[in-house]
This record gives sequence, C-alpha cells and structure tokens, in this order.
Amino acid sequence: MTELMVRRGRGRPPRSHSDGHVTRSVIVRRGTEMMTETGFFSTSIDQLLTTAGIPKGSFYHYFSSKEDFGLAVVENYADYFGRKLSRLFENTGRAPLIRLADFVAEAAAGMERYAFQRGCLLGNLGQEVTLLSPEMREKITATLQDWEDRLLVLLQEARASGELKAGLNIEDSAACFWTGWEGAVLVARLRRSSRPMENFFTIYLGTLQSPFTLLTEGP
Amino acid sequence: MTELMVRRGRGRPPRSHSDGHVTRSVIVRRGTEMMTETGFFSTSIDQLLTTAGIPKGSFYHYFSSKEDFGLAVVENYADYFGRKLSRLFENTGRAPLIRLADFVAEAAAGMERYAFQRGCLLGNLGQEVTLLSPEMREKITATLQDWEDRLLVLLQEARASGELKAGLNIEDSAACFWTGWEGAVLVARLRRSSRPMENFFTIYLGTLQSPFTLLTEGP
Repeated sequence: MTELMVRRGRGRPPRSHSDGHVTRSVIVRRGTEMMTETGFFSTSIDQLLTTAGIPKGSFYHYFSSKEDFGLAVVENYADYFGRKLSRLFENTGRAPLIRLADFVAEAAAGMERYAFQRGCLLGNLGQEVTLLSPEMREKITATLQDWEDRLLVLLQEARASGELKAGLNIEDSAACFWTGWEGAVLVARLRRSSRPMENFFTIYLGTLQSPFTLLTEGP
Repeated sequence: MTELMVRRGRGRPPRSHSDGHVTRSVIVRRGTEMMTETGFFSTSIDQLLTTAGIPKGSFYHYFSSKEDFGLAVVENYADYFGRKLSRLFENTGRAPLIRLADFVAEAAAGMERYAFQRGCLLGNLGQEVTLLSPEMREKITATLQDWEDRLLVLLQEARASGELKAGLNIEDSAACFWTGWEGAVLVARLRRSSRPMENFFTIYLGTLQSPFTLLTEGP
C-alpha cells in the first residue's frame, strides 16, 4: 500500500519517447505517486507533467480526460498491489499468519521510508468518493474486494494449518482486516508514526489466533 | 461522526444578518457539511457561499483565509462530536460497552440517512494531510486524541463493572477503536453499506469482552 511503486530512472525522463508506451507508463506512475499522497482532485495534471518533463499534448494523446487518467492510475495501483500481495501472501516458505505479519512490516517500513507522506491510493480516493464517477468507485471497490479475496485464501491456509481459532468466520475477518488497515494507514499519516498500524495488527491478530498457536517464524 | 451537525432552518438563510455571529456560524456549519462530504481542498468557498446565500465579503470579514476557515470548521466539528460522545459515553443508564454499541448504531443510522455521502471530517482531512498546514494537522490529531481519551474513560468504567477481559491494555484498545472506525466509515462510504462498521465493531467487541459477560441491554 505504501511501497515504492515506481522504479526511478536516473534523472528526469526525456521530453519525448520514440516508444509511446513508455511515456504513458511514466505519466501513470507519476500520477500514482501523486495520488497516493493527495488523492484525485488535488492532483494537478499540469504539475504532474511539468515534474515528469512531459508535454501536455502527450497527456491528451493517451488519456481523453483526467477521469480516464484516474482509471488508469487505479488500474496501475491494483496491478502493483496485487503483485505485492501475491509475493507476500503466497510465500509458502513462511507460516500463513507470518505472511500477513510480513505484509504489515513491509508496509510500515514503506510508510517510514516516505516520511508518512504516502498513504493508500484506495483510501485517498475513497474519501473523495462522492465526487468520483461511478466507474472510478466501481474500480476501487473491485480492487478492495480482490485484496479481501486474497486474504481469505491466506486465512483458509492458516485454518488448514491449525493457526486459527475454532469457529472463526474468516470472511468477516478478511473484510475487517482491510477496513482496519485503511484506518491505520490514515492515522499513521496523521501521527507520522507506524504505531497505529502495529497496534491494529497486534489486536487483530489476537482475534484470529488459536490460543494453542504461538506466532513464530515459519518453517 | 456522521450525524446531522446542522439544525436546518426553514428555507435558505437570509442574505444578510444583523447579528454577525449568526452569519459566521452559518458559514462554518455549511463548511462542516461540505467538508464531511469531500474534504478541504475540494470544498469551494464560492460554491459554499452561493448555496448558503451569503455574500463573499462576509466570508472575508470573518475569516482571513480558507485555511483560517478550515481551522474553524475542525473546531466546530470537534465541539459537535465531543458533545455527541458526552451524551452517549456518559449515559450512565446503560452498561459501558452498550454505550459504545449505541454510538456505533447511531453513526450507522446517520450514514444511511445521508445515503453514505458524508464521512468523518477527520478522516477526509486526514487523507489530505500532506497538503494541510501544521496547525490544521495539529488540531486534527488533538481531536482524535480527545476521542481516544473519552473512550479510555469508558473502558475504565467497563473494566470496573467487570465487562472486560483480564489483562487487557485499554490504552491500546481505545486507540485501535478509532483507527478501525475511520477505516470502517471509509469503506462504508465506498460500499454504500453500514456492514463494514457493524463487522468491525462485532470483531472489536470480541477483543474487549470478558467471556463471562454477555452484552445485553444495560441496567
């Protein structure tokens, strides 16, 4: 959620590219960075293009409107975040709940690395939801659903390996994680501390774990 | 957080007021409504004044800048919300944890009444934190701290009446409630459903309650 989503090149990108695809992805990446800081409406396309060294014409070559661009940014973020969750949640070298702890630790480190300037794109855009188009809202909720589904699979694994409390409703638990997580990222930015994320996770973990399981490093 | 914060008058307010205080509070209330929907930067002062039927000069009579106005709006929200929490959390006719459940039920009903258009002012502004002045950020975090302190008092009462698990760290629990709550309000708006709030609260409540206490209506 807070990880580097751009592999920075050396210096500012060239003013024009023979490969149009490169320019489009540069604009999308810069937009993703800006919107994870300040959301959709506060992101200025002019400022974005100036800092990325891209002429305005290029933007409208690739995107019909800021709205169209916003959809591309959410898509890019969903792809980036989906890859991150695959890497962490499907890391079978670690016990299932440890993988979730790995996600939390990586996100907290990412927040610190960016001095709590960057939050979660979905959280930022979610606060602007009354102003967003139905398409944007739909893409945001679908992405959130994807994260929930991925966590549900992880919790199924945790259950199979005996890490979970008996009778736990893992659908509700998966939903509750992302709900609490969005709030934790928000409060972490306000307080400039990863403590809200760690505190939420510690308490959340207690709702999952079987009293007979100690959370230790995976096999 | 999502409750009505304005007692609507009949029809639009008059274009001028002999009592300046009335005009100032009309502007602040309208600003509070708008910012709980869309945050600080997307709130247009021009639009605000037009819909409230107040001339632009009046605004700059009361506020030196939009920033100054934003501070007044956060203050107004903090007062409003503090009164709400007093009413609910200090309602000694109800068992302590029931009072917290009352808060959740009232907030969920408020979200529904406004068709999930309004969120939490602190959550909305929190997402814009990198763009806000240090004074605004300070006021937001102080308000969040006030809510946490009030919940801590309630949890102390719950402990005294035997409702809580032994050994619970109630400072961490109080912080975790507001963290998760901000996320729950955000996701409720995105999904246009109070289910995320109810789901979070059910799971959160399980982290507090003594297994020997059933949550039923207070004495």
